[in-house]
Amino acid sequence: MINYDDFLSHSAEQMKESAIRRMGTVLAQSRNTISFAPGYPAPDTFAWNDFTEITRDLLTGVDGSVLQYGPTRGYKPLLEEIAGIMTSRGVTSTPDQLLITTGSQQGLDLVARVLLDPGDVVLVELPTYTGAITAFRNVQASMVGVPQEGDGVDLAALEDTCARLLREGRRVRVLYVVPNFQNPTGLLIGLEKRQRLLAWAERRNVLIVEDDPYRELYFEDSTTEADVRPIKADDASGRVVYLSSFSKTLAPGYRVAWIDAPAPLAAKFEMAKQAEDLCTGALDQRVVYEACRRGVLQRQLPLLRRHYQQKRDVMVEALTREFKDDLSWPSPRGGFFLWATLPPQIDSDVMIARAVENGVIYVAGEAFFVNGAGRNIIRLAFSAPSHDRIREGVTRLGETVRQELAAIEAVAR
Amino acid sequence: MINYDDFLSHSAEQMKESAIRRMGTVLAQSRNTISFAPGYPAPDTFAWNDFTEITRDLLTGVDGSVLQYGPTRGYKPLLEEIAGIMTSRGVTSTPDQLLITTGSQQGLDLVARVLLDPGDVVLVELPTYTGAITAFRNVQASMVGVPQEGDGVDLAALEDTCARLLREGRRVRVLYVVPNFQNPTGLLIGLEKRQRLLAWAERRNVLIVEDDPYRELYFEDSTTEADVRPIKADDASGRVVYLSSFSKTLAPGYRVAWIDAPAPLAAKFEMAKQAEDLCTGALDQRVVYEACRRGVLQRQLPLLRRHYQQKRDVMVEALTREFKDDLSWPSPRGGFFLWATLPPQIDSDVMIARAVENGVIYVAGEAFFVNGAGRNIIRLAFSAPSHDRIREGVTRLGETVRQELAAIEAVAR
Repeated sequence: MINYDDFLSHSAEQMKESAIRRMGTVLAQSRNTISFAPGYPAPDTFAWNDFTEITRDLLTGVDGSVLQYGPTRGYKPLLEEIAGIMTSRGVTSTPDQLLITTGSQQGLDLVARVLLDPGDVVLVELPTYTGAITAFRNVQASMVGVPQEGDGVDLAALEDTCARLLREGRRVRVLYVVPNFQNPTGLLIGLEKRQRLLAWAERRNVLIVEDDPYRELYFEDSTTEADVRPIKADDASGRVVYLSSFSKTLAPGYRVAWIDAPAPLAAKFEMAKQAEDLCTGALDQRVVYEACRRGVLQRQLPLLRRHYQQKRDVMVEALTREFKDDLSWPSPRGGFFLWATLPPQIDSDVMIARAVENGVIYVAGEAFFVNGAGRNIIRLAFSAPSHDRIREGVTRLGETVRQELAAIEAVAR
Repeated sequence: MINYDDFLSHSAEQMKESAIRRMGTVLAQSRNTISFAPGYPAPDTFAWNDFTEITRDLLTGVDGSVLQYGPTRGYKPLLEEIAGIMTSRGVTSTPDQLLITTGSQQGLDLVARVLLDPGDVVLVELPTYTGAITAFRNVQASMVGVPQEGDGVDLAALEDTCARLLREGRRVRVLYVVPNFQNPTGLLIGLEKRQRLLAWAERRNVLIVEDDPYRELYFEDSTTEADVRPIKADDASGRVVYLSSFSKTLAPGYRVAWIDAPAPLAAKFEMAKQAEDLCTGALDQRVVYEACRRGVLQRQLPLLRRHYQQKRDVMVEALTREFKDDLSWPSPRGGFFLWATLPPQIDSDVMIARAVENGVIYVAGEAFFVNGAGRNIIRLAFSAPSHDRIREGVTRLGETVRQELAAIEAVAR
């Protein structure tokens, strides 16, 4: 028998299965389970007819490049569309700053590989996106968490943490933030704070990695486009690496996202991408390009904002009815997630078994914390299920929590 | 001004642009250039009508998962099809051994990240595939080359090299080979040698990474299916990590390939893939699955064998006519490539500028050698251009070489 552990790299020894992905596997095993776990967009919002038409137009065989290998940087017309999107977000980008990635997850992985050596510090929000944690862990970076306030990362804590690390002789390279409708908290970084973050990064000579997949999905009852202005829009010195994606607005099945970064870094991301997958899918990129060019994306955005805002409303209403004061959360002003704190005696990871039994799943909060916190928190994605399924799922969740509390009490007695 | 070099990881400092990808960029800049550079399949062989029909059937919106995130391992029905393909190649695979990758390039990258630490030795053939070199370089592995004979890697040299490295205290983990119609040489490893390689790996406790994208493209005038039997087919102890792909048989624009590996390694590849791109494109996987299920792939294979064999014939005939004895090559028995040695005074990398001027491109041999050899060799891909373009390209190449020889002579005088 071969002992494969002998063959693993240090990085591989530390690799773990993602909690979100694991929930995806649970989900795939039972159709009746209601999932608040992975942040899946709602497939009934996808522009199926447009995609059918676009694909038919593309697959005639007249243009062989539609199914061929392509440049690592990406399909040029799509890069030009993305430059236009960046302009509309307040960012001027030249072609040497843009790179198409196979989903934003690849963007995070490229960032990790190009910017971080084993032991280098990357500062992250407490909590932060698990996919980023995985990418940073796989290059053996050292993640250090910074608490958040109602308007995002706590600047005083950020400065204290950084100062302490530097005193300890650590190399602090990167601050990773999700400023708009953060995964998992749903929080926004305030506009003034974005400016101050940038000034802080300048002073401390740190790069900001700004991960922005949800910005188009702001809820118009409480948020305007002005509130989601990228940090990168005010980045005069080239300190921000910006990531965004079509996964939440067109469809994740097309793995098409992008990085907007200072040109010397974009060139390195391109080289890293060459080794990772040569290029992003040719057809996928062309479909996304056509969806931009033909106005499908623009037409979708207001519909999506309303769609997800309504689902947020349905979930908030159901949770309020079901839990009264046993659950609290910051009200999401956009995005896919509601970040709910349970009574302190509950361990949300332990409770998953009971939740699965009751036909509902979520992601346990701990997965989002690099400091082991979040034990009694859960992330609920309201994006994919129908209104009825959201209500029914919340009922099942309520039942689960009541059973769990009763069981804990029984043990205590 | 920010000095971005200060922010690069050690790995990023060493990253280089791939020679093949660079030629792709040159190609994209001029339509009239005849390309023997990137190993692109011929788009006129793609099953455009079938793809159109399949995609129309998939994009009805009835099944939302068609454009959704999916399991990292891959789309289950496709994994089952792949198990069937492996069976037809003589390999029995259980589901926990299979993983779908975003092209075989991702497979190579996952292999590198999971199996190699900085400084670990990976043994490679002289010459070897550049994409593998890039993936191994990006994890800072140390590549050591082993010469090839007419029937593939030289076993005596392999043993000597390995013994020397072990004496030097190096960690030798992996042997990387492309046994069928190797990129770039077009060589096959002989059947008996495959067995002996396996026995050698057993004795030296090394894993074999078997990269097999071209096996279906054997030329029936000289090669049978028996000749392309995977090393993995005789791997009783689980020592072989096997990679293959649909890129050369269906289309590379769908980025769909797979790994077949011992289950404990496959689990680690899955975790590494989670961080790299979450999952391979959902629609791409379904199109490939349907192309398997509906018999499109099976129907294509004999057509492709004939198609590329004819192109090989056209190129060989043109080269013989154009060069007489100034060029020599092992005759390809399958695949996409012809590996041609020029007169010794020529530096094929230097000659590229003149070739581009004359409207033809190739890949200079040096890119495929980890020991700096290959200065007067070129890799010619006959796969994509039409018969006429192959003939015209060879004429331009002949002109280029004659000019280069004259220029060298002029300088020498």
